[in-house]
Amino acid sequence: MTVRVAVDAMGGDRAPEEIVAGAREARTDGVVPVLYGPRELIQALAPDLEVIDAPVVVGMHEKPADAAREKRDSSLFAACRAVGEGDCDVVVSAGNTGAMLAAGLLEIGRLPDVSRPAIAAPLPARRGPSVLIDAGANADGRPEHLLQFAHMGTIFAEEMIGIRDPGVGLLSIGEEPEKGNRMTRQAHALLSEDGIRFVGNVEGRLLLEGAADVVVCDGFTGNMALKVLEGTIRTVLDEFREEMMKSRRGKVGGLMIRPAARGLRQRLDPDTYGGGYLLGLKGLAVVAHGNSSRRAIVSAIQLGARGVRGRVVERMAERLSTGAEVGQGV
Amino acid sequence: MTVRVAVDAMGGDRAPEEIVAGAREARTDGVVPVLYGPRELIQALAPDLEVIDAPVVVGMHEKPADAAREKRDSSLFAACRAVGEGDCDVVVSAGNTGAMLAAGLLEIGRLPDVSRPAIAAPLPARRGPSVLIDAGANADGRPEHLLQFAHMGTIFAEEMIGIRDPGVGLLSIGEEPEKGNRMTRQAHALLSEDGIRFVGNVEGRLLLEGAADVVVCDGFTGNMALKVLEGTIRTVLDEFREEMMKSRRGKVGGLMIRPAARGLRQRLDPDTYGGGYLLGLKGLAVVAHGNSSRRAIVSAIQLGARGVRGRVVERMAERLSTGAEVGQGV
Repeated sequence: MTVRVAVDAMGGDRAPEEIVAGAREARTDGVVPVLYGPRELIQALAPDLEVIDAPVVVGMHEKPADAAREKRDSSLFAACRAVGEGDCDVVVSAGNTGAMLAAGLLEIGRLPDVSRPAIAAPLPARRGPSVLIDAGANADGRPEHLLQFAHMGTIFAEEMIGIRDPGVGLLSIGEEPEKGNRMTRQAHALLSEDGIRFVGNVEGRLLLEGAADVVVCDGFTGNMALKVLEGTIRTVLDEFREEMMKSRRGKVGGLMIRPAARGLRQRLDPDTYGGGYLLGLKGLAVVAHGNSSRRAIVSAIQLGARGVRGRVVERMAERLSTGAEVGQGV
Repeated sequence: MTVRVAVDAMGGDRAPEEIVAGAREARTDGVVPVLYGPRELIQALAPDLEVIDAPVVVGMHEKPADAAREKRDSSLFAACRAVGEGDCDVVVSAGNTGAMLAAGLLEIGRLPDVSRPAIAAPLPARRGPSVLIDAGANADGRPEHLLQFAHMGTIFAEEMIGIRDPGVGLLSIGEEPEKGNRMTRQAHALLSEDGIRFVGNVEGRLLLEGAADVVVCDGFTGNMALKVLEGTIRTVLDEFREEMMKSRRGKVGGLMIRPAARGLRQRLDPDTYGGGYLLGLKGLAVVAHGNSSRRAIVSAIQLGARGVRGRVVERMAERLSTGAEVGQGV
């Protein structure tokens, strides 16, 4: 099966060069990236790939509502529309997340029974992969949204990570049900009553260790936690290197541990896992980091292709429509 | 000047052994820990220190309101009362944070013009120390509280860290004013209008790098960010060690970089900085980590003594009472 991936060539801090370079690298017999952007510019960078002309660009900091009103011709909206209309199987963008959500809703459409799409981000936890949902699609979440995120995350963990009967943890600031803010306390009560395997509150200090198979939170908290996690990994590894370079002994030791350090860096590098799925739409969308390098784009495209082959959207639609166990009517 | 430190001997996951051991180690000519707890138990552990009998214990997960109603005789409340009544200069507890806040309000009292006390936690940022406020005193903060936290944090950074004209950043999920949730967007507007040096939104990925001299947020977000930060540091360093031990070459390299690794571990270890100040009270209180080791307690007691010598509370009271520049009437 050949997967056609609509790539927003103009989205991201390093667009279009790094995005296009990543798309070229990601191309295989089974994965065919299609680039959306100003034709002449993009064609010159990628003479070997299909380019669909989309001359307008959505800025990284543009308001989503403005983009939705004025920029349906942009590379971001056109790439999403390609999925909505069936020209491509999945869309990948490192652009403006809010505009991506708007484009997903407008051009691809929401699955029935889903009130808010959410970003499911894979976490490179030590005990094995887990998923954080919502990693930033909705800054202001309500408790009933979290319940639905829990269902979407459960399906994702089962179908994509292959975890049987995944446990769902609520990200909060203490393990007891009453620890947290108003929103988490209400969400705790909702999650306790529903048909998922709720393991209770989990704390942020276990996020990288492996707090739960599925970690649920509102998009503000999830995005915050993910950015603190990624920034801390980076700073610790950088400081470690710096500290070693201060002495001759450290420099020699540093050379000897280089393979180990490289392995760890690669496993923990956000570029390795590429991005997250925007779940809850009728088609598949991958949200890549705003500062994605070509390597991150390769990973994001591969993530997208894996989701298409794994039939993430179809399976989610089936499961969500079976009603009872998925908190319908939320 | 001799500083008398009221230590809640029964607060914390490792109480009373580690707390008492830390208090004994922290004792110097100028720093005199006084232990609050069941006399016989504590006296047996520390025959060399003054012990004040406080037979009741507040559990780590007890509701603060229940503790305030029923447990004024507890070690936590008695230790706070010692500061309120002038028997001691500062109180240190690794116990239940919510109960500590309640005890601080009841036994020590709030400074005039302060609507909510907040925890100011020092961050071991790479560019130099900064302060995170609120690190967890109030799970549900309102925008106007954040403005006051910004003022308290500014005073703390000036007086205790010695930063002239510190910059205040608002912890959010994007640098643009409109990025964030409802609360941060409103807080952004308030902080922009007031007489502090507001540097705008800062992102969590820079927290350990050094985002701003003072990083302001609500207590849920602050506690979450701090725990993700601490947990990630721990997991990365542990994984690094594990990765090195997998090969002979890595093991030898690991021995050579041990001094560098130890230096970094120590600088980043929460036990080194000990805890945070609960600011906004008429007396000084130090909130230590719930799982404090003896070393963490030593650090917390030293932090408390430094705050007493630096006249943190007096200076804060003076500055807060000068009105105009501190957002009075909030």
